[in-house]
Amino acid sequence: MIIQLDKNISEKNKKAITDKMSSLKFKPTEVLTQKGDYLIGTGKADFDIRDLGQMAGIQDIHMVSDDYQLVSRKWKVDYTTIDLGDGVKVGANDFAIMAGPCSIESEEQIVKVIDHLKANNVKIMRGGVYKPRSSPYSFRGLGIDGLKLWHQHAKAAGIKIITEVMQVSQIAEMYDYIDMYQVGARNTQNFNLLDELGKVDKPVLIKRGISGTIEELLYSAEYVFSGGNERLLLCERGIRTYEKASRNTMDLNAIPILKEKTHLPIIADPSHGIGIRHHVEPITLASIMAGADGVIFETHEIPEKAYSDGQQTLNFRESDNMIARIRKTLELRESF
Amino acid sequence: MIIQLDKNISEKNKKAITDKMSSLKFKPTEVLTQKGDYLIGTGKADFDIRDLGQMAGIQDIHMVSDDYQLVSRKWKVDYTTIDLGDGVKVGANDFAIMAGPCSIESEEQIVKVIDHLKANNVKIMRGGVYKPRSSPYSFRGLGIDGLKLWHQHAKAAGIKIITEVMQVSQIAEMYDYIDMYQVGARNTQNFNLLDELGKVDKPVLIKRGISGTIEELLYSAEYVFSGGNERLLLCERGIRTYEKASRNTMDLNAIPILKEKTHLPIIADPSHGIGIRHHVEPITLASIMAGADGVIFETHEIPEKAYSDGQQTLNFRESDNMIARIRKTLELRESF
Amino acid sequence: MIIQLDKNISEKNKKAITDKMSSLKFKPTEVLTQKGDYLIGTGKADFDIRDLGQMAGIQDIHMVSDDYQLVSRKWKVDYTTIDLGDGVKVGANDFAIMAGPCSIESEEQIVKVIDHLKANNVKIMRGGVYKPRSSPYSFRGLGIDGLKLWHQHAKAAGIKIITEVMQVSQIAEMYDYIDMYQVGARNTQNFNLLDELGKVDKPVLIKRGISGTIEELLYSAEYVFSGGNERLLLCERGIRTYEKASRNTMDLNAIPILKEKTHLPIIADPSHGIGIRHHVEPITLASIMAGADGVIFETHEIPEKAYSDGQQTLNFRESDNMIARIRKTLELRESF
Amino acid sequence: MIIQLDKNISEKNKKAITDKMSSLKFKPTEVLTQKGDYLIGTGKADFDIRDLGQMAGIQDIHMVSDDYQLVSRKWKVDYTTIDLGDGVKVGANDFAIMAGPCSIESEEQIVKVIDHLKANNVKIMRGGVYKPRSSPYSFRGLGIDGLKLWHQHAKAAGIKIITEVMQVSQIAEMYDYIDMYQVGARNTQNFNLLDELGKVDKPVLIKRGISGTIEELLYSAEYVFSGGNERLLLCERGIRTYEKASRNTMDLNAIPILKEKTHLPIIADPSHGIGIRHHVEPITLASIMAGADGVIFETHEIPEKAYSDGQQTLNFRESDNMIARIRKTLELRESF
Repeated sequence: MIIQLDKNISEKNKKAITDKMSSLKFKPTEVLTQKGDYLIGTGKADFDIRDLGQMAGIQDIHMVSDDYQLVSRKWKVDYTTIDLGDGVKVGANDFAIMAGPCSIESEEQIVKVIDHLKANNVKIMRGGVYKPRSSPYSFRGLGIDGLKLWHQHAKAAGIKIITEVMQVSQIAEMYDYIDMYQVGARNTQNFNLLDELGKVDKPVLIKRGISGTIEELLYSAEYVFSGGNERLLLCERGIRTYEKASRNTMDLNAIPILKEKTHLPIIADPSHGIGIRHHVEPITLASIMAGADGVIFETHEIPEKAYSDGQQTLNFRESDNMIARIRKTLELRESF
Repeated sequence: MIIQLDKNISEKNKKAITDKMSSLKFKPTEVLTQKGDYLIGTGKADFDIRDLGQMAGIQDIHMVSDDYQLVSRKWKVDYTTIDLGDGVKVGANDFAIMAGPCSIESEEQIVKVIDHLKANNVKIMRGGVYKPRSSPYSFRGLGIDGLKLWHQHAKAAGIKIITEVMQVSQIAEMYDYIDMYQVGARNTQNFNLLDELGKVDKPVLIKRGISGTIEELLYSAEYVFSGGNERLLLCERGIRTYEKASRNTMDLNAIPILKEKTHLPIIADPSHGIGIRHHVEPITLASIMAGADGVIFETHEIPEKAYSDGQQTLNFRESDNMIARIRKTLELRESF
Repeated sequence: MIIQLDKNISEKNKKAITDKMSSLKFKPTEVLTQKGDYLIGTGKADFDIRDLGQMAGIQDIHMVSDDYQLVSRKWKVDYTTIDLGDGVKVGANDFAIMAGPCSIESEEQIVKVIDHLKANNVKIMRGGVYKPRSSPYSFRGLGIDGLKLWHQHAKAAGIKIITEVMQVSQIAEMYDYIDMYQVGARNTQNFNLLDELGKVDKPVLIKRGISGTIEELLYSAEYVFSGGNERLLLCERGIRTYEKASRNTMDLNAIPILKEKTHLPIIADPSHGIGIRHHVEPITLASIMAGADGVIFETHEIPEKAYSDGQQTLNFRESDNMIARIRKTLELRESF
Repeated sequence: MIIQLDKNISEKNKKAITDKMSSLKFKPTEVLTQKGDYLIGTGKADFDIRDLGQMAGIQDIHMVSDDYQLVSRKWKVDYTTIDLGDGVKVGANDFAIMAGPCSIESEEQIVKVIDHLKANNVKIMRGGVYKPRSSPYSFRGLGIDGLKLWHQHAKAAGIKIITEVMQVSQIAEMYDYIDMYQVGARNTQNFNLLDELGKVDKPVLIKRGISGTIEELLYSAEYVFSGGNERLLLCERGIRTYEKASRNTMDLNAIPILKEKTHLPIIADPSHGIGIRHHVEPITLASIMAGADGVIFETHEIPEKAYSDGQQTLNFRESDNMIARIRKTLELRESF
């Protein structure tokens, strides 16, 4: 049960509602986000909705049968749009292209990627400054200094930044230099990180776990939302299966299924989804026809020299071509 | 190693070649298909290709590093087109739409589906007369009598038939009434069935195993080809994973990967790939952008009353709409 | 619903019962096995069991809520024992050791393995004469001649034979030379093969599919049982997962779960289950503590020279040691 | 490459070694643990080991071909034993039984479990005070106050404590009240947490990821070890597969494989591995025969009333019986 509260509800009225919820065997959780105040009722009991509906201070009540609630389309049928400022939006009517290198490597690299994005009218740049690596001896990224350098150039060029946050302490550290946090596939169920991201007023893109279910991804988003941050995006990036011919198995089924279950924007990551450079384009275009609200992919001037993920990174010429085809495919989809 | 032989090679010359192959530590296998005569050499030794190349009776020699050989694009770069007669073709330049019910149920049903296909200019009809069922107590299909009835109507309407063959004895039984055999996901590694299908001069569509790898699918095709039948199609129909939100996990990565590895046409089966009726269309259109040479999907006048698979079957109106979009999507892809 | 019929039930009485079943909305299937006559009722309707129970010709009625019925422990709580003759039995009180090479290779090999088994008082020998191989160019076994040779030596030594049957035509061909048919992991859902094995009066061991569920394995057994053959064994041989450090993932959970669900004996195949020779022993002993009714493993005089599966095959000394430990572990388990 | 350094090596000598390593194209990483000082060389180049071996300050050099190094048995063949103090040890010769509830719930519950453990001479108690939960609305544990209460009773009883740590800030918070940290399956690749646990002088048990590979588990341990903490244990707790009949698929193959690859102790968690209360015992005993160095399982006075995981938790009588059988099974294993 989701109860939308009046903005100026009195504490007394609020208490009356939570008492009533408890008496109906629903556990109340108060959620205050940037956009509204809610009481979430967890429970399964039957009751007459009018017992609650007429109480003072209530704007609206929604019965949600899913166990995740705030991210469900059962109470919010209209799709959410995430506004990054300066006219940059991501959502069902605002398809987003996000591109950039796996790792931020140098000022020269930053400048070249930004030039490439500007030439293609792409407004959001991806890149890692803290890299999760299986081996402790691998390159772990340039860290906060790399981010500051990147931010300086991106801001000047009017480009928004999305980068991965790996731990709680990085949330504040990064805050002034990014436009969107990314939660990586290894941290999708790092619940403390999700809790803390609920307290921040910047958008968060959550990647599906390496072997995460669609339901778990929705629960992870519920963590952030119920912590107070409504501005969320979900990302399909391939799952782990027995198949060895590709890096991951891109689960495009997840896109229409997620679009049915949640009002949040759904982004596709074909670079990780297939992991083979010359097959990134068909999977990208397929993601669009499957219904994605945006794509995030890896590009680099010379993929062969990238510090990481070069085997799945497009060069600028490949990226130019693909972006043009993305837009034509999107146009077709919108004509349906 | 694949050696294409002269059509009229003498037995003496052939023996000289196989002796030479053996001396080079390659095991020779003779393959006679409808289209040509080959000697396949299995082995990994190094040798000077000129030792063989100048022998009498040899048309061409191809060194193939893949373990599957005849189906590999390493010796046959041009994509294969399967000709079903009467102008009906399937291949890279001849996108195929195959549609029909899960099970053939009655004459009335056959007629209605054929009318629907004709109205949409669809030339190939799918349908099961022998059904593989997990439980021995489930409906197992109308059998050969159902097929004969279907064939009578389909022939009159100029519609080609594809249906699943489950055992060796059905190959001959079905022969006069079908245009393409289908090997189902549970029989992809039924090697005796594959061997026997190698002896027939009708095309065979092989579905990927329920948890089959891409490589295993290629090997299964190699069985049929090396048995003598070159007219093969491969079909991605979703694989088994831990995800419970969809019936299978449609592996669209397999499409560009297979298009790179083999010259055979690749068909997508979105009905089984996602298994949810209202999500079949986005996955179908995604399959096209991923590079499929055709799609096979389930349609029925009243899916709710279908004997099997109703939950993933489109009604005729949904099918009409989707076919129109398939053609528009294909047109866009061909413009790239 | 399972109705056990009187041996000498009249056709008239039988018809009265099936008519009654139909009127109660249960679909009747008649099953005649070597051991008894049954009517299986498929359906889910509620009714008063006394409406049926007092009819003439009925020995007993069991309501079974599982969708597989005849193999369920819900109607037959006592575990089944399979009698191979000459005092060789397999079941809950008759732990079976089955051992032998992956492939039957030569008379010399047969004799050596038989000597090894006799020295260890092992009564059942495994070996393949028809081999399912991913590649059509691999060794496919010695065929029926190899089987006849093997049978001649095994019979003289008092050793029972289990071997894989891959197609319907082999059932009759093999009949006189084997004591137990094995259905391999690629044929677990080859329903025609299962149907035909239902008509034979020799035991059948069914391996779990390469990615088969526990439930699918039970359904496959239901096929054979409902075809008329009650003498069945099930075999856990590892499933396909994403883990690459072992050939398969041995699912020992399946053993106690199967022992709860079915009255049939459960055999463990640790050779395929882990696929690494020096780890076969711990997985074998673990299978016993998990509750297996028998094990089947691969042994060869010189595994390095075996035609197939050498990497998971024990030499005779390793096999000697392991068999001694199997018996001690079993003794401990039986003391609990 | 692992170079064990002299305890009192001079900075000058150390620099000479790292310079030499760099010139041989090995990237040096210095590792200082509680037990020794190391230089880890990452690289694959060939060189003459004598070029390094005779340099001042080097105790020993080991060439390790695995990509994880410090946890590999390739340089440390003898198995590691973890000493928890007061005579409580875990290792190849010191089998450990760890038991307790899923969640710490109340003082009464703590006391009852401790009494149960004492009666069975079990020295290590498990229990969660911070619980990772898929849903933000589920019970998340009693937190630090629960831990303090637990510690007070456990210390008085001479029982050691293992509990899950979910974030960096909890490491210090918990430090005084625990004997072993546990990293849960959702945090196996939370690299910042692993880095920080490298700085602590208390043992850490790392659970395999929900769909983690054996290799990834070894890398996670390498993180902690290379951070400075040698006292590590690894835990198999079941992996995610397509099989729905059990909560997870217990991968007992992982036990002998890990015992071959690493010198660290390997613990089995059968409660999560199968997730079904009445099947926990056979999987526990199987784990022992597979070679585990210890088991960790869930027990509660009244599992039906447990706050979490009741369906896989033993009651005290079941636990009594199982512990007796664990010891008998272990005795048999040690006799081999």
